[in-house]
Amino acid sequence: MSVVARYGDPAASLTVASEVLALQLARRSVRRFGDRPVTEEELAALVAAAQSAPTSSNLQPWSVVAVRDPDRKDRLAELAGRQAFISQAPLFLIWVADLSRARRLARRSGTEVVAADYLETTIIGFVDTALAAQNTVLAAESLGLGSVFVGAIRNHPEAVAAELGLPPHTVAAFGLAVGTPDATEPAGVKPRLPQAAVLHRERFDAAAADTHIAAYDERLSTYNTRYGLPGNWSDRVLARLRGPESMAGRHTLRQTLERLGLPSR
Amino acid sequence: MSVVARYGDPAASLTVASEVLALQLARRSVRRFGDRPVTEEELAALVAAAQSAPTSSNLQPWSVVAVRDPDRKDRLAELAGRQAFISQAPLFLIWVADLSRARRLARRSGTEVVAADYLETTIIGFVDTALAAQNTVLAAESLGLGSVFVGAIRNHPEAVAAELGLPPHTVAAFGLAVGTPDATEPAGVKPRLPQAAVLHRERFDAAAADTHIAAYDERLSTYNTRYGLPGNWSDRVLARLRGPESMAGRHTLRQTLERLGLPSR
Repeated sequence: MSVVARYGDPAASLTVASEVLALQLARRSVRRFGDRPVTEEELAALVAAAQSAPTSSNLQPWSVVAVRDPDRKDRLAELAGRQAFISQAPLFLIWVADLSRARRLARRSGTEVVAADYLETTIIGFVDTALAAQNTVLAAESLGLGSVFVGAIRNHPEAVAAELGLPPHTVAAFGLAVGTPDATEPAGVKPRLPQAAVLHRERFDAAAADTHIAAYDERLSTYNTRYGLPGNWSDRVLARLRGPESMAGRHTLRQTLERLGLPSR
Repeated sequence: MSVVARYGDPAASLTVASEVLALQLARRSVRRFGDRPVTEEELAALVAAAQSAPTSSNLQPWSVVAVRDPDRKDRLAELAGRQAFISQAPLFLIWVADLSRARRLARRSGTEVVAADYLETTIIGFVDTALAAQNTVLAAESLGLGSVFVGAIRNHPEAVAAELGLPPHTVAAFGLAVGTPDATEPAGVKPRLPQAAVLHRERFDAAAADTHIAAYDERLSTYNTRYGLPGNWSDRVLARLRGPESMAGRHTLRQTLERLGLPSR
């Protein structure tokens, strides 16, 4: 059962089931794509799925740029950690936290949207973009398509903005490479932390939650070894968050957002 | 067809279909719940769905607190804009952007996670929490449950942290009220912006996108009138983003995050 793979735990089980749950439990990131293009009809469905996600006060503070042009995909791949699968994917969606639409509404009506200057509103932009994009991920799965998020689109936000002609008061939040999964890719469903490590009842209990990390470290170490990756989960989290030098330039995001017209104060 | 309701546009159509898409297109926010509790088995499935969402570098930087206690729900409702449906929902999930787990890993191993101090990492926390929660929204739909996000949980983040015993380096990102939909609730599928207003090809074209807003304003005005709400979309966006006074106290989020141990520099 797919929940066993999701937790890397032969004892894991669920007593309720649905087609949606089955797709979610079986999802993995896809970084090797077949030749079949993503059709315009599929793209329309993926965007309708995104727009069906909840959004704070119906603000809809996001836009998406669909990139199919091979040269542009190559340039974006170069900007986003030189990840070759971006070029290889038939469709690369760049999800844009977009407060520019509200700014244009305000300009046309001769008013101001001062709330757009605050960190709270930047966060709403990123969160609502994420809710939308996750709906697209699952809609894609349901159509036989695979995908992978590309946070590295934030390595060089201003160069990405120039490449895509993004207006002020917007930022590329993340990319999503989409295509048909190539079954030869050596990749699997990555086990997650045991539920008891993330789910709390009534009040947060860090000590109780953390007792489950050691078992997970062992499971993930086994999984990583299978795919030639070193270390357990704790090792990799600590390496990833060590300091600015482990952030691929993204430690300057705050200053970059200011320059992009998202002062986030 | 549900895409017509999603866009409030009789001409809207999709040529591809799936059960997931159908659920997504039909989703609406539910703010009136029936008496049936959400079972422990359903909660386990909702959390497994959340954990199945992608997460940056497998950091899994979130936790979730499941609140069923009526008194605690009442107190949280009071802190979150006095929204009665929070008390009424059998299950209130508080989604926590959680950088405390990584901090505890670091402390135990005698190292530091300096990257956790940066806005980039705070954003990863919120985004990954949102990806997870959106999977839960759809899993809930697939089990016949309804839900609504509660951004107002950020109106008083420190009081919420005290109520839930949240440790430093965490913040309640948003709530999600979950239960069986009460069919007597006067609510519908809220129409979204036309696709052409949010979807760009190769490069962002603000002028072309914005030509579609006037038609949407008309559609949403019609929809709002049906449910006794004033104004079209543009009116409501401008009112919501007017200034700090329209933010229910959330204009101080940046300072609050610093105090909570998420300096976001």
